[in-house]
Amino acid sequence: MTMPDVLKNDRFLRALRREPTDTTPIWVMRQAGRYLPEYRATRGRAGSFMGLAQNPEYACEVTLQPLDRFDLDAAILFSDILTIPDAMGLGLSFAQGEGPQFARPVRSAADIARLAVPDMDGELRYVMDAMRLIRRELHGRVPLIGFSGSPWTLACYMVEGRGSRDFATLKAMCWNEPKLAHQLLATLAQSVAAYLIAQAAAGAQALMIFDTWGGLLGPAPFREFSLRYMAQIVAALQSDPASRELPVILFSKGAGSHLAEMADTGCAGLGVDWTIDLADARVAVAGRVALQGNLDPAILRASPDVIRREARVVLDSYGNHPGHVFNLGHGITPEVDPDNVKVLVDEVHAYGRTLRA
Amino acid sequence: MTMPDVLKNDRFLRALRREPTDTTPIWVMRQAGRYLPEYRATRGRAGSFMGLAQNPEYACEVTLQPLDRFDLDAAILFSDILTIPDAMGLGLSFAQGEGPQFARPVRSAADIARLAVPDMDGELRYVMDAMRLIRRELHGRVPLIGFSGSPWTLACYMVEGRGSRDFATLKAMCWNEPKLAHQLLATLAQSVAAYLIAQAAAGAQALMIFDTWGGLLGPAPFREFSLRYMAQIVAALQSDPASRELPVILFSKGAGSHLAEMADTGCAGLGVDWTIDLADARVAVAGRVALQGNLDPAILRASPDVIRREARVVLDSYGNHPGHVFNLGHGITPEVDPDNVKVLVDEVHAYGRTLRA
Repeated sequence: MTMPDVLKNDRFLRALRREPTDTTPIWVMRQAGRYLPEYRATRGRAGSFMGLAQNPEYACEVTLQPLDRFDLDAAILFSDILTIPDAMGLGLSFAQGEGPQFARPVRSAADIARLAVPDMDGELRYVMDAMRLIRRELHGRVPLIGFSGSPWTLACYMVEGRGSRDFATLKAMCWNEPKLAHQLLATLAQSVAAYLIAQAAAGAQALMIFDTWGGLLGPAPFREFSLRYMAQIVAALQSDPASRELPVILFSKGAGSHLAEMADTGCAGLGVDWTIDLADARVAVAGRVALQGNLDPAILRASPDVIRREARVVLDSYGNHPGHVFNLGHGITPEVDPDNVKVLVDEVHAYGRTLRA
Repeated sequence: MTMPDVLKNDRFLRALRREPTDTTPIWVMRQAGRYLPEYRATRGRAGSFMGLAQNPEYACEVTLQPLDRFDLDAAILFSDILTIPDAMGLGLSFAQGEGPQFARPVRSAADIARLAVPDMDGELRYVMDAMRLIRRELHGRVPLIGFSGSPWTLACYMVEGRGSRDFATLKAMCWNEPKLAHQLLATLAQSVAAYLIAQAAAGAQALMIFDTWGGLLGPAPFREFSLRYMAQIVAALQSDPASRELPVILFSKGAGSHLAEMADTGCAGLGVDWTIDLADARVAVAGRVALQGNLDPAILRASPDVIRREARVVLDSYGNHPGHVFNLGHGITPEVDPDNVKVLVDEVHAYGRTLRA
């Protein structure tokens, strides 16, 4: 594809390279989401969540919606973290208020042996079509982020078949049949690498891996079953011409004690949840990577004055150093008033300038 | 009351005092629970969870059940963490498969102003009756633990009215109306202190505070809204004749980065979840408190060989030092095979002896 657009705002990419910026860039996890009435309208027309995600025009529309409202410094592909297992034939659906479910969860060695890396020009072509369309429609306003769930997090849902408090079914497999678990995770790591490389080829300008459930593991199992496969993916991305220039962000929720090891993967940035001070996180990674975070999403339900104050607390905690991308510590929730997001974005930019002055 | 019994097994209390023991003591959070068929039978006779908890004979029966099966080193009062708000008039119930719910959640300043410390000889007398009965029926086999939810954790449920992923309603109150939140938490801290002192007077030999949701808070809010009130309770317990000799254990799930500050409260021990190595936790608390934990509860769904191996990993991580009480990192889950608990208890005792040899 052609890449005609010069980026008009490269704060986000500069921060990921730990270069100076005029102010702190910000985007918001799940910024295209149910808290926006225009999102709910498009979602209504699409009929279902997967109908929305699998239609490139709709996906493009909702990706751009938050950029029209807020002065955000990055766009992120509208999609779901579970597109890969869906493309593997597991049958993803979202029952009303229930979260994701798979019609055909992975339960046996035969189930795992049957799994193959999906065709990026086949079952997952709709993702690449959406990426190309969004990139074109962005006209270089801000960089476009591609993403995937991590192998561990995908496996959690694939083996459990749905959301869970502890994903004990996959954990039991890790302990009782570790070879089987590793076979599953290796297939997923290959799939995620291919998926992110294809997203890069389709126009993504940064890549993020969401390891939503890595924090459910103790330190040694985290290394063995989650981090190891994210490291494989980062290495694969860095050796492919389509993706090797792109910064990669890893985000393991609840894994604040593993930041140094995660930085060892060679990623450009780490997402940080709100249970750790950014000042401590900076010490942990010793300037080797950028940090992205980490306002408690619940603060967006507070008043504008509190939102501004707490945004400044996060900015001060990181301090006047390069390499900070402001974000929430987890996805924005549906009850948030969109006006509060504007308050946050504007305060981050204003105070980020003050901090540098 | 009279305390006629000499303890036949004081390993648990000695470990909390960081004194040498012949082997590592073990008990299991929620050891009287649904994984035991005899528990389910008693629960069936009681008709409901609250019917079980509020009947001292039933509560005594299920408290003793796991001790008859396993060589556990402590008993813990069978009760719920939400007895205090129930006694305050909020109307606790447990819908099938739904978790706790309050009929009258706390939503306004008037609701909070109306709350009073419950009468330990009135609404909560059933707890003290159960404690006295259990203590008598134990005949000094092992020490008896009393417990309460922490003020923060009680407030989470009281304000939300039920379980939640993020308890954002209480968080919003903390940010928008901090005085109101502190008023609620202060009343709860007084109530918890009175409750635990009454449990001590009724026969408890150690006291534990479950701060199940403290880990949802960032570092500064954790100090302000959770830890501060637990510290007040520890101080109150240490100044009351009924409780001042009793060791207190604090357990904030997901708060592995706050262990040093928690040790500053003057508690005897800290519960530790499985997301942190006990070796690191020992360094963090620098020998000032005992540590209790921290096997991932999901490991009890693995095979006996894996359970034994992972139990040894936990024991080795703490090492041959005084002050370790073995436990899970969170409560045991209903699907666990009781035989696996026996495997765990016996391995901890056997390997604990080896470790000391």
